[in-house]
Amino acid sequence: MRRVTSASNPAVKAAAALHRVRNRHATGRTLVEGPGPVAAALEAGVVPETYFTTAWDADAARAGDLGAEVLMVDESILRRVAATGHPRGPVAVITIPTPERPRRAPTLVLAGLADPGNAGTLIRSAGAFGYDVAATPGTVDLWNPKTIRAAAGAHFAVTIVAALDLSDLRAVGLTVVGTFPSGGDDPEGLQLPSPPAVVVGSEAHGLADRAGVEIAVTIPTTGAVESLNAAVAGSLVMYTLAVARHR
Amino acid sequence: MRRVTSASNPAVKAAAALHRVRNRHATGRTLVEGPGPVAAALEAGVVPETYFTTAWDADAARAGDLGAEVLMVDESILRRVAATGHPRGPVAVITIPTPERPRRAPTLVLAGLADPGNAGTLIRSAGAFGYDVAATPGTVDLWNPKTIRAAAGAHFAVTIVAALDLSDLRAVGLTVVGTFPSGGDDPEGLQLPSPPAVVVGSEAHGLADRAGVEIAVTIPTTGAVESLNAAVAGSLVMYTLAVARHR
Repeated sequence: MRRVTSASNPAVKAAAALHRVRNRHATGRTLVEGPGPVAAALEAGVVPETYFTTAWDADAARAGDLGAEVLMVDESILRRVAATGHPRGPVAVITIPTPERPRRAPTLVLAGLADPGNAGTLIRSAGAFGYDVAATPGTVDLWNPKTIRAAAGAHFAVTIVAALDLSDLRAVGLTVVGTFPSGGDDPEGLQLPSPPAVVVGSEAHGLADRAGVEIAVTIPTTGAVESLNAAVAGSLVMYTLAVARHR
Repeated sequence: MRRVTSASNPAVKAAAALHRVRNRHATGRTLVEGPGPVAAALEAGVVPETYFTTAWDADAARAGDLGAEVLMVDESILRRVAATGHPRGPVAVITIPTPERPRRAPTLVLAGLADPGNAGTLIRSAGAFGYDVAATPGTVDLWNPKTIRAAAGAHFAVTIVAALDLSDLRAVGLTVVGTFPSGGDDPEGLQLPSPPAVVVGSEAHGLADRAGVEIAVTIPTTGAVESLNAAVAGSLVMYTLAVARHR
């Protein structure tokens, strides 16, 4: 444990730089923020490289025991490294895990989603309903610190897989199910030949097109509003198609 | 139509003040931001008092025809009155409608929710699934501009009702169904004696207690993550209990 009092300390600057996607990609590192997500990471066996905290507590001691460099900082330095204006609890620098290969298991596919909060909410639902998670290029970074925060620790409970496009998921035997705001089948009671890859498109434009989608589904609504929030729609489709509920 | 070029213009200052809940309560006014929500308000017959826009377009002309004072402003003034750093489209000052009395119809009850984004997402789902909306004291302001933005216009499609506590909803014959992260019944296939009042508690603490709750429900999950996002959980319960799906 070491006390850091200057915002120009190299560890502080290196951590703060990770709010930019460019620096996350260049270094392969990201930030996990808040007591819940940090505890979930430690629980999953992730060893933070650096662990910023304002208080010496059980999690800080545990991070230190695991081999993290624990840095005691004041509120103003914590705010420098955190994504939120009023950070709660520790901020940990971790190495971004290498994604797994896709497998024949229910999978959430983020395809063009732009909002880190929506992405995190969907990853949290994927964890709750037993889905792996993939993101195609052009989607918000799964390892954006805001996404990690919104997922409330689910990044460390789900299997994240690499997919360049929907054909990578068909190739392992998944049925590609696209979520559309209108015009698709009701997912309720839908019989699928194999576990679903549930695809959620961008908040503004939905799924760019139906190329690669085998079954289009739409959550039935009254029509009083134009559409559901993308994270809600994707969560509802995952829930409705969850293997546990139909087999 | 009038051009406003100074950020100290009284209309600009009065609008910007509405980001504070205190000023919304004192004036009975709020801000609707973005092309979608503003169009939904106009569609529902809401006449904005003031309509800030950077471009003279069909919606601006319509607002002017309805009697709104249309003020042409530049980007920097739009940012002053908008809740977002990069506002898209117009910002309208409207009078907050008086809530209706509760009625015997499916109703979403926000009871302690703190995040305006979650509240807006839930109101959007309420509109999609045919629920009225109530909020008990201690909940984020339903008319927070961020809540209105997240609801994507649903405020103008749903019936908002006034409720001081859950007994006000039982009094009109609703069955009070509380959403809990664990320990409740599976809402799937649940038979209710009357339309549900679906109660969603705070993100951090859930429902403070079960007082006033007749049936506790929990969306079944794998247990790999601690809980669902509150807006997702509430939306799933509304969806599962929606009258249209069971009668």
